[in-house]
Amino acid sequence: MKSLKIIKIGGNIINNKMLLNEFLDDFAKLDSPKLLVHGGGKSASELSIKMGIEPKMINGRRITDDETLDIITMVYGGKINKNIVAQLQARNSNSVGFSGADGNSIVAIKRPVKDIDYGFAGDVTHVNTQTINVLLQNDISPIFCAITHNQNGQLLNTNADTIASELAIALSKDYKVSLYYCFEKNGVLKSIEDDDSVIEHINNQKFEQLKKEGIIHDGMLPKIHNCLQSIQKGVATVHIGNNKMPFEQDIKCTTFQQ
Amino acid sequence: MKSLKIIKIGGNIINNKMLLNEFLDDFAKLDSPKLLVHGGGKSASELSIKMGIEPKMINGRRITDDETLDIITMVYGGKINKNIVAQLQARNSNSVGFSGADGNSIVAIKRPVKDIDYGFAGDVTHVNTQTINVLLQNDISPIFCAITHNQNGQLLNTNADTIASELAIALSKDYKVSLYYCFEKNGVLKSIEDDDSVIEHINNQKFEQLKKEGIIHDGMLPKIHNCLQSIQKGVATVHIGNNKMPFEQDIKCTTFQQ
Repeated sequence: MKSLKIIKIGGNIINNKMLLNEFLDDFAKLDSPKLLVHGGGKSASELSIKMGIEPKMINGRRITDDETLDIITMVYGGKINKNIVAQLQARNSNSVGFSGADGNSIVAIKRPVKDIDYGFAGDVTHVNTQTINVLLQNDISPIFCAITHNQNGQLLNTNADTIASELAIALSKDYKVSLYYCFEKNGVLKSIEDDDSVIEHINNQKFEQLKKEGIIHDGMLPKIHNCLQSIQKGVATVHIGNNKMPFEQDIKCTTFQQ
Repeated sequence: MKSLKIIKIGGNIINNKMLLNEFLDDFAKLDSPKLLVHGGGKSASELSIKMGIEPKMINGRRITDDETLDIITMVYGGKINKNIVAQLQARNSNSVGFSGADGNSIVAIKRPVKDIDYGFAGDVTHVNTQTINVLLQNDISPIFCAITHNQNGQLLNTNADTIASELAIALSKDYKVSLYYCFEKNGVLKSIEDDDSVIEHINNQKFEQLKKEGIIHDGMLPKIHNCLQSIQKGVATVHIGNNKMPFEQDIKCTTFQQ
């Protein structure tokens, strides 16, 4: 089975021109097949405020009303995505920008309203790998923004971490997938103040222990849950670390295992 | 040689939800291979005004400063493009949104400054058909917005009519291309008040005559010049007409010939 690297980058890289350039240099040099997923929340909030629309967040999740969905689509699918693609082409790395609607790649449902109405937020139901595979087989990298669709014409705002893991799981039928989550830390840390205190391996048992000890909490919980689930569903390896981690062999990061 | 239909739609369809739905119904039913090019100038100006940036036009062409380029990229490449793709997927028509940066498909240079500085406006220098062909061969329709890039990381705002004709010319190496420009009239009209006065055939000689008689002027001149040049450069047929014209055999329109 051929190997495939799927890399997810977030706001800390996207909103820092120097870091983004450095990352794209590395990504361009990486052997194909490869696939990139990007978020971009901060830029969407900035445009929102410019347009006089106050961004609404609950528990770190965006409430996506009609106007906000337009902003998300413009910023993620337009500004950030097209600029990344242009930057990769400048590095002779052939790529095509994707949302979940493109190639009918990622189908989602509008999140059912329980306590909170998240608006046009998408929960992924299905990944179609056919069009993605056509590109990967031709050494063209799909560059995914965090948007899905409901196959009925409705775009949906979707968590970028989820998009990366759903793609990784679905593409594991055809590839030995390594999934990399790049963020602002060197990995999952034992002590948030000590950037060297990386927990190098996490499995289900270790996760339960870390939760019990109160070492992992808040935003990291769904992230780690995501990683462990990806492994359980067939992804070969999952890593959390800094923006150099997917490209260098001997860099410390957190690796997830069954 | 296989046939390929390239259809360009402008603001009159994009800004009218009913017309757009009708057009996408027709486009979805059309046999592959097919390719769509869309403009969307009016929506860009609307967002511009919302953000407190006055759109600047000279001779009907937009002056694209840094902020305006962002708006163009967001509206054309994001909002309009992704919504069209989602609408086509809802009609079981597989498509992928493209700018000229995607697949390194359309390379342009920033328009040289003579009398007027158009800013980040692109003049097309080269079309790479490789990635487009990969999709067309797999019955996936590329949906192009009117953005190109300079292969050095810079996106450029580019006339949608030009994009359609440059794609048509380049793809004529591999396909018998029919190029359709849909707009608000039934074709090039003898009398602007009479929508039935369609001039059914135009060649170089007829064009000169029509110019002399003052029947064609203003905005139509570059449009027709574009069409005749496409024919000269290898496109099989070029048509100007209404939004039903690419889909119905017996509809009146203007057809261009050598």
